[in-house]
Amino acid sequence: MVRDDFHERLAALDASLVGMAQTVTDMMGRASRALLTSDTDLAERVVEMDASVNAMRNRVDDQVAELMTTRPPMAGDLRFMLSAIRITGDLERMGDLSKHIAKIAIMRAPASAVPTEAMPLFTSLAEVAVRIATKATQILGTRDQLDATQLSLDDDEMDALHKRMFAQLLSDWPYGVEAAVDFTLLGRFYERYADHAVNIAHQVVYLVTGDVRLRD
Amino acid sequence: MVRDDFHERLAALDASLVGMAQTVTDMMGRASRALLTSDTDLAERVVEMDASVNAMRNRVDDQVAELMTTRPPMAGDLRFMLSAIRITGDLERMGDLSKHIAKIAIMRAPASAVPTEAMPLFTSLAEVAVRIATKATQILGTRDQLDATQLSLDDDEMDALHKRMFAQLLSDWPYGVEAAVDFTLLGRFYERYADHAVNIAHQVVYLVTGDVRLRD
Repeated sequence: MVRDDFHERLAALDASLVGMAQTVTDMMGRASRALLTSDTDLAERVVEMDASVNAMRNRVDDQVAELMTTRPPMAGDLRFMLSAIRITGDLERMGDLSKHIAKIAIMRAPASAVPTEAMPLFTSLAEVAVRIATKATQILGTRDQLDATQLSLDDDEMDALHKRMFAQLLSDWPYGVEAAVDFTLLGRFYERYADHAVNIAHQVVYLVTGDVRLRD
Repeated sequence: MVRDDFHERLAALDASLVGMAQTVTDMMGRASRALLTSDTDLAERVVEMDASVNAMRNRVDDQVAELMTTRPPMAGDLRFMLSAIRITGDLERMGDLSKHIAKIAIMRAPASAVPTEAMPLFTSLAEVAVRIATKATQILGTRDQLDATQLSLDDDEMDALHKRMFAQLLSDWPYGVEAAVDFTLLGRFYERYADHAVNIAHQVVYLVTGDVRLRD
């Protein structure tokens, strides 16, 4: 009975992580829409959602701490619990970064923080960011190591977009310094968001194999 | 005997964290000097140091995993081990951010990434970043909650410098877009570095009180 209860609680922890990942994926989709359409109501919703992500993180971390005192964990369960701690850290940052994007949208409204010509680029950035986060969420549920490895390809796409952004910024930029600052920060936020999603995939590989390599 | 060995290993873990914190503090000092003097040799050293910080993180995380399987941890020890996992994450990022600063120095050399008039501002940014990291390192050693709370004041100073940076950037910026991009990213790197150091202090509060509040 104790064992069953323990594994039920592990499964609950797993579900919490997936739920948190879905929330930050949703936040990125909304933040990007808010940015591209200067929709401050939507942006404000993203800012509110961030508080609930922080609360989710605290709850998950408490779940882990509780589970660990229940009994000496076996290697596999222990790996999962340690990964959970790292994953909530990544997810919390993904929430923050979505919020930062929403806040830039709010700060510049009713104007747009994104120059019209850069709209297609930002549409791609948003599309890739949401795709990577969606895959990371699935990987959290399935623990499929192969998917986790393939996520690096999506991340390469993000890096390529990021490079294109900077090329645009440095070759011919008629929009002034304020827009350049927004552009630089926004690019950084999308890139970091994707990095965290890829970190989560790496944690799943650690879960499955016990081995983790730090990138960067 | 088992108990003594366990506590010896906890103390060793503690010492590893302090050592890692000293290294990333040192990295920030060197990266800033490299940036302000366009010293590419020094900057390259910082880039190399980052690899050893990543290795330190993996080692500390392994130490934690090993300790946790030794026996069911008591509440206080468990808090310490969970904090250690989060703290190595923060320290690893502080290493990355120092490396990013060093890489901008390398990219712009023999020119300087920092316009002459902004040198005093960057000297202050570097000074505050190193001061915050030094205090965070001390707090890791002493677990003094009061110091941890006071670190927020230093962080306010960092935020004020960061605001001054942006004011300078947006009021009168004769240096062109590339320099504005560097300036924006550098500001972000210093700010994030300080945030991570403050996170570490918050983790120490959690260690001591069992309570942690997520900022942001």
